[in-house]
Amino acid sequence: MKSGSSFLLAARQCEISELEQLARTSELVGVIGRSIHALQRERGLASIFLSSHGRVYGAERQQQSAACRAAEQEVRVHFEQLDTDASRVRNGSRLFSRVAVVLHGLEGLPALRERIAAQAVDVAEATAAYSRLVAALLAVVFEAADASTDPEISRALVAMFNFMQGKEFAGQERAFGATAFAAGGITPDGQQQWRHLIDAQQGCFQAFADFSGPEVLRAEQASGDPAVLAEVERLRRIGCTARGPLDADLSLAWYESCTRRIDGMRQVEDLLAVHLRRLCESRITQTRAELRDQRALLEELSARPVSGPAPYGPQLERSILAMVQEQSRRLQAMSDELDAVRATLNERKVVERAKGLLMAHRNMSEDEAYKALRQMAMNQNRRLVDVANAVLSLADVLPGGR
Amino acid sequence: MKSGSSFLLAARQCEISELEQLARTSELVGVIGRSIHALQRERGLASIFLSSHGRVYGAERQQQSAACRAAEQEVRVHFEQLDTDASRVRNGSRLFSRVAVVLHGLEGLPALRERIAAQAVDVAEATAAYSRLVAALLAVVFEAADASTDPEISRALVAMFNFMQGKEFAGQERAFGATAFAAGGITPDGQQQWRHLIDAQQGCFQAFADFSGPEVLRAEQASGDPAVLAEVERLRRIGCTARGPLDADLSLAWYESCTRRIDGMRQVEDLLAVHLRRLCESRITQTRAELRDQRALLEELSARPVSGPAPYGPQLERSILAMVQEQSRRLQAMSDELDAVRATLNERKVVERAKGLLMAHRNMSEDEAYKALRQMAMNQNRRLVDVANAVLSLADVLPGGR
Repeated sequence: MKSGSSFLLAARQCEISELEQLARTSELVGVIGRSIHALQRERGLASIFLSSHGRVYGAERQQQSAACRAAEQEVRVHFEQLDTDASRVRNGSRLFSRVAVVLHGLEGLPALRERIAAQAVDVAEATAAYSRLVAALLAVVFEAADASTDPEISRALVAMFNFMQGKEFAGQERAFGATAFAAGGITPDGQQQWRHLIDAQQGCFQAFADFSGPEVLRAEQASGDPAVLAEVERLRRIGCTARGPLDADLSLAWYESCTRRIDGMRQVEDLLAVHLRRLCESRITQTRAELRDQRALLEELSARPVSGPAPYGPQLERSILAMVQEQSRRLQAMSDELDAVRATLNERKVVERAKGLLMAHRNMSEDEAYKALRQMAMNQNRRLVDVANAVLSLADVLPGGR
Repeated sequence: MKSGSSFLLAARQCEISELEQLARTSELVGVIGRSIHALQRERGLASIFLSSHGRVYGAERQQQSAACRAAEQEVRVHFEQLDTDASRVRNGSRLFSRVAVVLHGLEGLPALRERIAAQAVDVAEATAAYSRLVAALLAVVFEAADASTDPEISRALVAMFNFMQGKEFAGQERAFGATAFAAGGITPDGQQQWRHLIDAQQGCFQAFADFSGPEVLRAEQASGDPAVLAEVERLRRIGCTARGPLDADLSLAWYESCTRRIDGMRQVEDLLAVHLRRLCESRITQTRAELRDQRALLEELSARPVSGPAPYGPQLERSILAMVQEQSRRLQAMSDELDAVRATLNERKVVERAKGLLMAHRNMSEDEAYKALRQMAMNQNRRLVDVANAVLSLADVLPGGR
C-alpha cells in the first residue's frame, strides 16, 4: 500500500515533471519569437514592394523570404520534438490544434510568395495573410502561458505573450504606415485604424510591464533608442493628422525607423526568453532539492525507533502532519496567485468572445468588431474588458444568429 | 516531419486520454462518496453515544466503525491504483497532496475510536475530527472537478461536489442537533450556528441544481420523503427557536429522521455517479468515433490524385482547413464554457481566501471567520462571494499579519 508520505513525494515529482514540460515549452516560445520576427519583416518588405509596384525592396524581400524559411525550419524541428504521446501530454488537445493551424498556414506561404513576386496580389490581402500566420503562431504562445501551473513562470509567460503581441501590433503598424505613405494619402478611417494600432500596442506593453520585474523593465527601457522613437512619433503625427496628400518619399524613412524600433524589441524578447529559461531551471533545481530533503526527512523519521506504544510514533506523526500541511498551504497559495495571473489571460478571452459575438450578430469583420468595442470603451470611458463583458451579457437579447 | 493533420489527430488523442483519466477519477469520486457516507454516520452515532454518556448506540457505533473500515479499504485500493508516474499525470501535484492529507487523517482514526469507546474525548472534539477527515476527502473531489477539461463532465462534477458538500453540512447538522437535544438545551450562539448549517446546505443544493439537467433534478426531487422532511423541519423549528430547555428524548427522533433524509441523499449520489460514468463513457465513444472519421477523411484526401500543379491540391487544402477551423472553434467554445463552470469553483476559492485573511488578521477561528462573512452578506444584502471579494480587496489596508 502506498503511504501518505509516498503521495507527498509523488506530488513533488509531478511538480518537477510539470516544470520540465514548461521549460521545453518556453524554449519553443523563444523559437516562435524568432520566426514571427522574420515574418514581420517579410510582411513589411512585401508591403513596400507591392506599394511601390515592384520598384523598391525586390531583392531584400527575396533575402528575407530565405531567412523566414530558415526560421520556419527551426519551428518545424521544435514541433517535431513535441511529445505527442497522448498519455504523457498536458493540455495537448488545445496546443496541438493550434500547431495544426500554424502548419496549415505555413503550407500556404510558397504560393503567397509567388503571387507577391508576380505582383498578382493586393497589398492589403498579402499583409493580412502574413498577419493571420503570425496570429496563429501567437496562439501557440498563448496556450503555453495558459497551461503553466507555476505562478512565477506564468507571470513571465504572460509578460512575454503580451510583449510579443505588442510587437506584432508594432509590425502591423509598420506595414500599414509604409503602405499609407507610399500611396501618398490616407483616409480619416485609415487614420483611425492607425491610432487603433498605436493604442493596442500601448495596452499590450502596459500588461507586459504589469507582469515584469524591475530587472526586465530596466533592460526593456534601455533597449529603445530615444532618437528612433522620436522619429517614429514624428512620422506618426504626420500620418495620423494629415488632411491632404502624404509625401510618398517618407515611406522608406518610416519603414527604416519602425524596423530599428522593432529590432530593438526583438532584443528584449531574447532577454525575456533567457529570463524565462533561467526561471524554469531555478524552479526545477529548487523543487528537486525540496524533494530530496523531504525524502531524506521521511526516511530518517521512519527509521527512528518508535518510543510510544502506537506503531506510528507521535514524533513521526507530528513531523509528517507539518509537512503535509506546509505542502497543502504552499500549493493553495500558488493556486491563488495563478488565478490572479490568469485573470489577465481571461480578459483576452472575454474580448475575443465579444468580438466573435459582434461578428456573428452584426455581420462585422474581426477588425470592425474590435474597433466597435474600442469605440464603445472610449465613449463610455470604460475598460475594454468591461465593455466586452457588457456585450456578452446582452448576448441573449441580441437579434439573429446564435 | 509531422504534418498539420498528424497534430490534428494527436489533439484528438489527447482529448480521449484526458477523458479516460476523468473516467477513472469519476470512479474514485464515487468510492469517496461511499466512504464519506459511512464516516458521517459514524460521526452521528459517536455524538449520541458520547452525549448520552455511553447509554445509547454503543453497539451500533462499533458496527458502523467496521463499515467505515471496509469503505476506507476501498478508498485505499483506489488510491493505490492511481497512476503516480509523474510523466503521465495531469494536476498530480495538487491531487496527490490532497490524497496525502486524507491518508494522514485516516492514520488517526483508530486512536480516535479508542478514545470514543473509552468516553475519553469531548463530543465537540470527536465530531470535529470526523469533519476534518470528511473535508479532506471532499478536497480530493474538488481537485477532480477542478482538473476536468470537458465542460459537460465539469458541470456534472461541480454538481456532484456541491451535492456532496451539501450532504456533509446535513451530516454536521445531524450531529450538532443530536448533541443539542441530548444536552437538554442550546445557547443563542448555538442556534445561530445551527441556522448557519441549514443555510450552507441550501447554498450547496442550489449550486447543485444550477449545474444539473432536468433528469437528475427529477430523480433528486423524487428521492426525498416529504414526511421525513416535515419531521426534520419540525425538530429544526423546536431546536432553533427554543428559549428554554430541550426535550432530551427528541435526540433519537432527530437522529433517526436526519439519517433517513441523509440516506435518501446517498441514493441521489449513487445516481449522480452513474450519470457521471455514463457521461464519460459516451464522451469517450463519441471522441473515438470522431478521431476515426477524421483519420479516414485525411487518408482518403491524401490518397486522392492531385489535379492542380501544387503538391497540395486545392480540394485537399480546403477540406483540411475546414477541419482545422472546426476543431479550433469547438475547442474554443469548450474552453469558454469551461471558464463559466469554473467560475463557481473560483467562488469557493475566493470565500476560502477571505476566510483565511480574517483568521490571520482578526485572530478568528475558521468557523468565526465564515460566520462573520455570512453576517456581512446578510447585513449588506449581498452574495457571500461579493462580500468575500470586498474583504480581499481590503487586504492591503487591514492591520497586522500577512
